[in-house]
Amino acid sequence: MFKYTNLYQWGWRLIVATTTLVAAVDIPVRLVLDYQSLGRVTGFDWFITLIFAADMLLNPALATRRGRPARDVLEAQANPGPWFAIDLAAAVPFTAFLALPPLQLLRLLKLARVAEMMRRWQRAELHNPNVIRLVVFLFWLALGLHWLACGWLSLRGVSPDVTEGTNYLLALYWCVTTLATVGYGDITPTTNVEVMYALLTISLGVGVFGYVIGSVASLLANIDPARVRHQEMVERVKAFMRYRQVPSALRQRILDYYEYLWEKRLGYDESLAVSGLPPSLRTEVCLFLNREIIQKVPLFRAASEEFVRAIALEMRPVIYMPGDYIIRAGDIGEEMYFISQGTVEVLSADERKVYAVLKSGEFFGEMALLFNQLREASVRALDYCDLYLLTRASLERTLVRHPEIAARITAIAQQRREENVQRQEKRH
Amino acid sequence: MFKYTNLYQWGWRLIVATTTLVAAVDIPVRLVLDYQSLGRVTGFDWFITLIFAADMLLNPALATRRGRPARDVLEAQANPGPWFAIDLAAAVPFTAFLALPPLQLLRLLKLARVAEMMRRWQRAELHNPNVIRLVVFLFWLALGLHWLACGWLSLRGVSPDVTEGTNYLLALYWCVTTLATVGYGDITPTTNVEVMYALLTISLGVGVFGYVIGSVASLLANIDPARVRHQEMVERVKAFMRYRQVPSALRQRILDYYEYLWEKRLGYDESLAVSGLPPSLRTEVCLFLNREIIQKVPLFRAASEEFVRAIALEMRPVIYMPGDYIIRAGDIGEEMYFISQGTVEVLSADERKVYAVLKSGEFFGEMALLFNQLREASVRALDYCDLYLLTRASLERTLVRHPEIAARITAIAQQRREENVQRQEKRH
Amino acid sequence: MFKYTNLYQWGWRLIVATTTLVAAVDIPVRLVLDYQSLGRVTGFDWFITLIFAADMLLNPALATRRGRPARDVLEAQANPGPWFAIDLAAAVPFTAFLALPPLQLLRLLKLARVAEMMRRWQRAELHNPNVIRLVVFLFWLALGLHWLACGWLSLRGVSPDVTEGTNYLLALYWCVTTLATVGYGDITPTTNVEVMYALLTISLGVGVFGYVIGSVASLLANIDPARVRHQEMVERVKAFMRYRQVPSALRQRILDYYEYLWEKRLGYDESLAVSGLPPSLRTEVCLFLNREIIQKVPLFRAASEEFVRAIALEMRPVIYMPGDYIIRAGDIGEEMYFISQGTVEVLSADERKVYAVLKSGEFFGEMALLFNQLREASVRALDYCDLYLLTRASLERTLVRHPEIAARITAIAQQRREENVQRQEKRH
Amino acid sequence: MFKYTNLYQWGWRLIVATTTLVAAVDIPVRLVLDYQSLGRVTGFDWFITLIFAADMLLNPALATRRGRPARDVLEAQANPGPWFAIDLAAAVPFTAFLALPPLQLLRLLKLARVAEMMRRWQRAELHNPNVIRLVVFLFWLALGLHWLACGWLSLRGVSPDVTEGTNYLLALYWCVTTLATVGYGDITPTTNVEVMYALLTISLGVGVFGYVIGSVASLLANIDPARVRHQEMVERVKAFMRYRQVPSALRQRILDYYEYLWEKRLGYDESLAVSGLPPSLRTEVCLFLNREIIQKVPLFRAASEEFVRAIALEMRPVIYMPGDYIIRAGDIGEEMYFISQGTVEVLSADERKVYAVLKSGEFFGEMALLFNQLREASVRALDYCDLYLLTRASLERTLVRHPEIAARITAIAQQRREENVQRQEKRH
Repeated sequence: MFKYTNLYQWGWRLIVATTTLVAAVDIPVRLVLDYQSLGRVTGFDWFITLIFAADMLLNPALATRRGRPARDVLEAQANPGPWFAIDLAAAVPFTAFLALPPLQLLRLLKLARVAEMMRRWQRAELHNPNVIRLVVFLFWLALGLHWLACGWLSLRGVSPDVTEGTNYLLALYWCVTTLATVGYGDITPTTNVEVMYALLTISLGVGVFGYVIGSVASLLANIDPARVRHQEMVERVKAFMRYRQVPSALRQRILDYYEYLWEKRLGYDESLAVSGLPPSLRTEVCLFLNREIIQKVPLFRAASEEFVRAIALEMRPVIYMPGDYIIRAGDIGEEMYFISQGTVEVLSADERKVYAVLKSGEFFGEMALLFNQLREASVRALDYCDLYLLTRASLERTLVRHPEIAARITAIAQQRREENVQRQEKRH
Repeated sequence: MFKYTNLYQWGWRLIVATTTLVAAVDIPVRLVLDYQSLGRVTGFDWFITLIFAADMLLNPALATRRGRPARDVLEAQANPGPWFAIDLAAAVPFTAFLALPPLQLLRLLKLARVAEMMRRWQRAELHNPNVIRLVVFLFWLALGLHWLACGWLSLRGVSPDVTEGTNYLLALYWCVTTLATVGYGDITPTTNVEVMYALLTISLGVGVFGYVIGSVASLLANIDPARVRHQEMVERVKAFMRYRQVPSALRQRILDYYEYLWEKRLGYDESLAVSGLPPSLRTEVCLFLNREIIQKVPLFRAASEEFVRAIALEMRPVIYMPGDYIIRAGDIGEEMYFISQGTVEVLSADERKVYAVLKSGEFFGEMALLFNQLREASVRALDYCDLYLLTRASLERTLVRHPEIAARITAIAQQRREENVQRQEKRH
Repeated sequence: MFKYTNLYQWGWRLIVATTTLVAAVDIPVRLVLDYQSLGRVTGFDWFITLIFAADMLLNPALATRRGRPARDVLEAQANPGPWFAIDLAAAVPFTAFLALPPLQLLRLLKLARVAEMMRRWQRAELHNPNVIRLVVFLFWLALGLHWLACGWLSLRGVSPDVTEGTNYLLALYWCVTTLATVGYGDITPTTNVEVMYALLTISLGVGVFGYVIGSVASLLANIDPARVRHQEMVERVKAFMRYRQVPSALRQRILDYYEYLWEKRLGYDESLAVSGLPPSLRTEVCLFLNREIIQKVPLFRAASEEFVRAIALEMRPVIYMPGDYIIRAGDIGEEMYFISQGTVEVLSADERKVYAVLKSGEFFGEMALLFNQLREASVRALDYCDLYLLTRASLERTLVRHPEIAARITAIAQQRREENVQRQEKRH
Repeated sequence: MFKYTNLYQWGWRLIVATTTLVAAVDIPVRLVLDYQSLGRVTGFDWFITLIFAADMLLNPALATRRGRPARDVLEAQANPGPWFAIDLAAAVPFTAFLALPPLQLLRLLKLARVAEMMRRWQRAELHNPNVIRLVVFLFWLALGLHWLACGWLSLRGVSPDVTEGTNYLLALYWCVTTLATVGYGDITPTTNVEVMYALLTISLGVGVFGYVIGSVASLLANIDPARVRHQEMVERVKAFMRYRQVPSALRQRILDYYEYLWEKRLGYDESLAVSGLPPSLRTEVCLFLNREIIQKVPLFRAASEEFVRAIALEMRPVIYMPGDYIIRAGDIGEEMYFISQGTVEVLSADERKVYAVLKSGEFFGEMALLFNQLREASVRALDYCDLYLLTRASLERTLVRHPEIAARITAIAQQRREENVQRQEKRH
């Protein structure tokens, strides 16, 4: 976020912007409704002059940022000529010297400064582009409509039958009905100049309409990108299933799975979002994402913070459905698993005997990695299981630096192995 | 899909929603057309009070789900304060205490509850987002139009010349012509307040219009995603052919191929859709997709279910056109093929002799894999051929676990080899 | 493309469709303008009856396709019930039995058959989806407008002041101005029923408008996909250059390069389009794309067709700009090059001496591949060069099967090598 | 860019185009407002005839391009028949022979030539497709509106009450209000022909509207693609963080990082843009992108230009945040780093001692690469650090060709190593 050196900067810019806006709304109205008043120098005129003059002096001083000067500021300082001319033209109270009301419109040049402030604010706020773009657009649209209405009123002439407010309101009403292509037709141009003005307004209207429609569509598409991504994924799978006429029972099971993914917030491919970050942030994010499993597994709770950080980067979530084989006896083992949620059963190779049922917080599959042997038992999910997987390479890389954890894992694995041996002896 | 514990929940929520909707339609109309009637307590008023009060008591009890409580419910229970205030304000029959008709509008607060129900329903139904979004939007649009019409009618005053129904219909007609930017101009605002109301309606209209156009475009694009994917693929190939000025005869053959793909429903890259699934679902889907070939090949029909499951995961469909060489004598063989549809001929290395013609359900290319030798014969497609391919690695992985199938394949291969030897001896 | 067994089928279907359309246009008009006439049985009535009855009998016979029956036909034959009812209702000349004109509208049911024909035609014509979709949409839009106009006319009543044609034209005019949201307001609904009809028309209009705008946008985007792809590529590069403020001289050279790519039609990544094709088509396409180089290189002109086919699949186009080093002396060589267009110079390792200048049709870089040695000379592009590259692996794979070409390439390489040796001896 | 052989070509084509446009605007207006004048041969008529006749003679001569003839020109020359007929019909002064004013419209055929010029210009200007497409569209839209207005005026008849200019303006006004779907309704068609003309105009209007809206949306999306890319990246990360409920402190740090990326213009994946370029351009771009680091590092400033070119292609920018470990003691080192901006500290393996603090222009991590040893020290970022990374393979590839640089790097590394040894000895 763009940070001014202090609140005074913000405050000052706000005062300048507000003054400019009041002038931008007020001067055209008075030009149309009360032409003579613009020729007189009022207190408000002097106030504007004061504010704009002060801004001219303060601006260069304000245009530095904490620490490193911003690219924008450097650019602005590089060509101060035009800005100076604009600031000057807006600040001079021409009314005091020449009684020529339209010269007051020069004060509206200061809007270029406001536009630049908004552009800078917009650049800083990269993070909500659609909303900010729409707000900025609506701001300029409202100002433009005001000017269009003033222009229409000046062409049409102020009707003495109704109040000034009603006159202005009807002009605004005509502009809006025309821009929005409603075109009731109760107020229509009569003179040639009015017709030309109407043509201009309509041309603007089509562009504005196109912009609004495009922006609304874009806004809609970005309200909840995570949901959109999930829906696209589901849509793709559904299209495939319709296309190949997958039977409806299987379809339902697949859709249930995706619903489970969404409810557990697991359908999002985090690697995509995380991979762009520098190492320290990546570690923080992984620590946060895997905090649940780290708090559950007794092994990790006791470990040093450094080990936890290292392991957090390596673990990857996987989901199994009830009945899925996670490990099959006889396979070559390349991963070990930590259970975050759900229950698994450890089965003998012939699947006749259940050796153990493991729950949330426990781990399995480490023996094949530690002793370099084939899987000795099968493991099957009994419920929806959220597991965290650690590959052989990750485990070895991490344990090399943390011999104390390596010793504890080996101890548990050794104990399990002995139990297995006893079981097998008992059977024979 | 979102499952309530039982039908009673659904029923009750439906009753509450219906009552709320009737009140939301009825109260504004009476406020405009029959202001006095709202001051009197009617039977319907007491009915609403009863229903809303009952809902306040029942809501916490209903807000649990079978098995695991939903994230939404937990969130809703976490901040019950605002909900309680809303429920209470909607339930109190103010008319009974204060004869102030506009207070009845507080009952419309209950719509927030209906909105929440719909939002929840929408979340559960992730699977048809475009249609549901449009339906929900049309529902709120209709309700909003009703309120806009009531507002217009109250500003404009009820004309005594025509019936109340006609009065309402004309107000609705004005709203719709304005929102849709048609703007006939037969009814136009006259007072300042009406003009402002019209401005508001027009501004809403542009947004609504943008939303409808964006939604219709999005709906159109998602009617048949499989077809859209295929069309994009064809479009890309056609652009390439135009660009490089491929002759029209070749173009036609290529387009014929894509038509064949589409008709046989083979143009869809299934790996994309299937890869995201957990193992058990992936197996089921592959079993289903390859069911045809599994039923056709005698070897598979006799095999155990476990073998069929294993092989289904490994086979990959390929298509050859008439005249394509599938295997060339002298090459190193890395795949074997099962014929799903079409005919192939087995040729001698010099292509002078046809050894055999194989049909749907037969397989070939296994010898190079089993005996680790170069291809001894060429195989050429005689027709459009839908084959299933099995790589050497897949075959070996699968046969290790199923020695009985390995033995049978080896026997057939051995027999074919002997025939080959005899043929070659005969020739010399 | 969908192929009927013969022209008779096409002809017959065309006759049925035309008859149905004439009836669909004619019957509503007569219902509004000449109600009584529908009660009389005319020759046209009997003609329709005849045609529709004949179609009922012929349809099952026609619904088979040459060779394999289409999926659509099978589906249609599977549930003939509804189709039979529709055909029957449309064929019976109710006017002959009951003098009830509106019953004639039942004949419009036959449009369901026309819709089905068009849907089938649309499915077959996967290849121009946007245009066909728009044409079909415009067809139904025109028919719908006709019906809407008839409906409006029947509500409004036929004005006796003007001719029947003018009456109809004004009704159509009202429908179009309303659907297109123009809404002049010279014709507005007056009775309640008319207002409701107008509301319906406006609602339709918004949907139709959304559809047209979405379709036009989609059509625009697909007029020339190759150009769009190229423009996106250029746009991406330009954004990058602006972003990193690449100096304008370098920018211009890069844009020149992309212009050259576009003019030579080389900017399209053909692998994307070709990779999806089965082997025989891929060969044909590669042969076509590389035909220029194959005709130019004397080595290839003399070779067998089989060799040319094999080499066409392996060659890959590359472009070098003037001054680019294609080969640097001392490097490990992994590719050889054939010159399609442009000139290159062969330089000594110290770049002091130009050994040779090679032109279109010649090749270089083969020595490092054949004799397994480091690059002995540098090669530099003198002009924009379109080369075709052949990797070591590709060359070896191809030459193994074609010893006669291998011998000739080796001979040329040998000769060049000797020249090199002589040159070096001369220098020392 | 499309380059004519000289300015004369440009000039001549401009004259022809301007003459054609004046005729295209003038002739329809005179046909409507001053029908008789078209029957007389004016000086302007002879001027047009002269220009068009001269163009017919000059065209073939002009249609060659510097160096290689353009594909378009070749196509145009291939079928000169139609072009000749068009040119002739436009050039003949029919008014001189036949006093039939409408024949003058044949001169508008020359617009086909102008259209072809613009199409060619558009093809050449691939580089700003959206803007050029919109300009071309607006040009034809303006011309079309002019013709539509003339047509309307001829149907409606010229009103003698107002001037000719007003007559034309009102016709144009009607066309614009109709095309833009505003439809005030103050001018509406009265005769049947006018109604049909209005229907045609409205139909055109819907298409034009769709086109404008689609184009505006497309233009908006392409104003700043680099920003759009960055915003999409940030949006994706934000969606992920919301989805997984990352705590807000961590969120803020991640967003700060992306803001830093954007401000430093480092968020753009340059490999994407650069990879498509031929070698010489790629080198130039890399030289430019890495110019900052090349100027800062003393080692590079002294090196030969060839070395700098080679190294520029190999270096890759990386960013580290304060506190990130860039190197950890004990790891296997595969990269060395050059500091572009920021400060790093070199720490002993136990992190108790700070060996050195390195600043912009210095390098580190070279020892592990040169002496094939494990990392002996840790390096940690003290600030936001923009580093350039060189892998072991890149370094070796480059140093082989530049032994003088290799010697200097080795010397510095040797010196550092001795310092390390001394430090370690001192400690013990």
